[in-house]
Amino acid sequence: MARVSQEHLDARRRQILDGAALCFARNGFHATSMQDVLKEVDLSAGAVYRYFSGKEELIAAIVAEVLGQVHDGFEEEARNSPPPPPDILVASVLGRVLATKESLTVDGRPAFPRLVVQVWTETLRNDELAGLLREGYGAVQATWTRIVEAYQETGMMRPDVSPDRVARTMMAAAMGFLAQQALFGPASAEVLGDGLRALMSVQDHSSVNLLETRSN
Amino acid sequence: MARVSQEHLDARRRQILDGAALCFARNGFHATSMQDVLKEVDLSAGAVYRYFSGKEELIAAIVAEVLGQVHDGFEEEARNSPPPPPDILVASVLGRVLATKESLTVDGRPAFPRLVVQVWTETLRNDELAGLLREGYGAVQATWTRIVEAYQETGMMRPDVSPDRVARTMMAAAMGFLAQQALFGPASAEVLGDGLRALMSVQDHSSVNLLETRSN
Repeated sequence: MARVSQEHLDARRRQILDGAALCFARNGFHATSMQDVLKEVDLSAGAVYRYFSGKEELIAAIVAEVLGQVHDGFEEEARNSPPPPPDILVASVLGRVLATKESLTVDGRPAFPRLVVQVWTETLRNDELAGLLREGYGAVQATWTRIVEAYQETGMMRPDVSPDRVARTMMAAAMGFLAQQALFGPASAEVLGDGLRALMSVQDHSSVNLLETRSN
Repeated sequence: MARVSQEHLDARRRQILDGAALCFARNGFHATSMQDVLKEVDLSAGAVYRYFSGKEELIAAIVAEVLGQVHDGFEEEARNSPPPPPDILVASVLGRVLATKESLTVDGRPAFPRLVVQVWTETLRNDELAGLLREGYGAVQATWTRIVEAYQETGMMRPDVSPDRVARTMMAAAMGFLAQQALFGPASAEVLGDGLRALMSVQDHSSVNLLETRSN
């Protein structure tokens, strides 16, 4: 009995989070009211407010969940020694996150990339959300930094670049890829994986020569 | 006399575009009124409307200018044979674009990355802007694709990945790097250049092995 009840509570919570995510993806956080969310999930105010005190708590829960999934995905991969190379790693984690959100659509297109861009914009004027995003992003970056250190320790990657910069670059590629999907339509995470794989094949010495030329 | 007058017109146009860019970066396109722009540039409505019919034309001019700068930057580099490797190329073009916008600040931080994220969000609900962005982005992608083809033809990069996917990945890295700056503060384009350089050093055969393992 108790377990059924918990399942019910979880399913209801999920339903509210997904409905709110759709609303935010469609119109942004600012232009979405709690009324819009209630209408989307087709529940009474009492039923929804039992779980979330308002929009702020909803967006915080959504952001925490997504960043948690991303973080867990990389943590899991980081346990391998050596970890999978960047192209495999990024495509795998991004692909899994996109798959969990596949059922959420706006105008027949995946809602998740739109939601991400809307959250970024809201972050620009919402200090609480900015703090939450910074924290979640920092956790992902810390995991990525450990993965890069493993690449460098096992000789997979040149050791003379700060792991922090590589972590930042890998995350930038994934973030920009999501922005592209929001702006220009869906694409498989394999597109990004293939692009990174090609980049990994670029001969390094030419860049060193050019760097020397440029610094004169 | 005529030349002075043209200079004056150009400077006035510049002043209006920069003021509007600041307003859009600060509050987004939707929440910015023409009144806000007039106040920011400290000009009369008559003076401003002589150049731009309204917000739509302002944002279109700003987006066209930025995408034009990015496109010109890559076109210039594409003329070299072989073109500079990706790490140098991205850091150089991104660095130059960031430098031209350096004087525009919001709360003491560079306004340009914020402006980019605000434009993306507005694009989600503004079909005209979406068309403009798609066109400008397509032009940049076409140039990037030619650069990747040159990498592949000169043996700098493995030839078995679609140039289009590599182009998309390079642009994703730059876009995500800008989003990071909007969210977490400024960083030099060299950070991204270093990250890409490290990525270029990753041994390729391990990824091929892993790919084979994974596909079982």
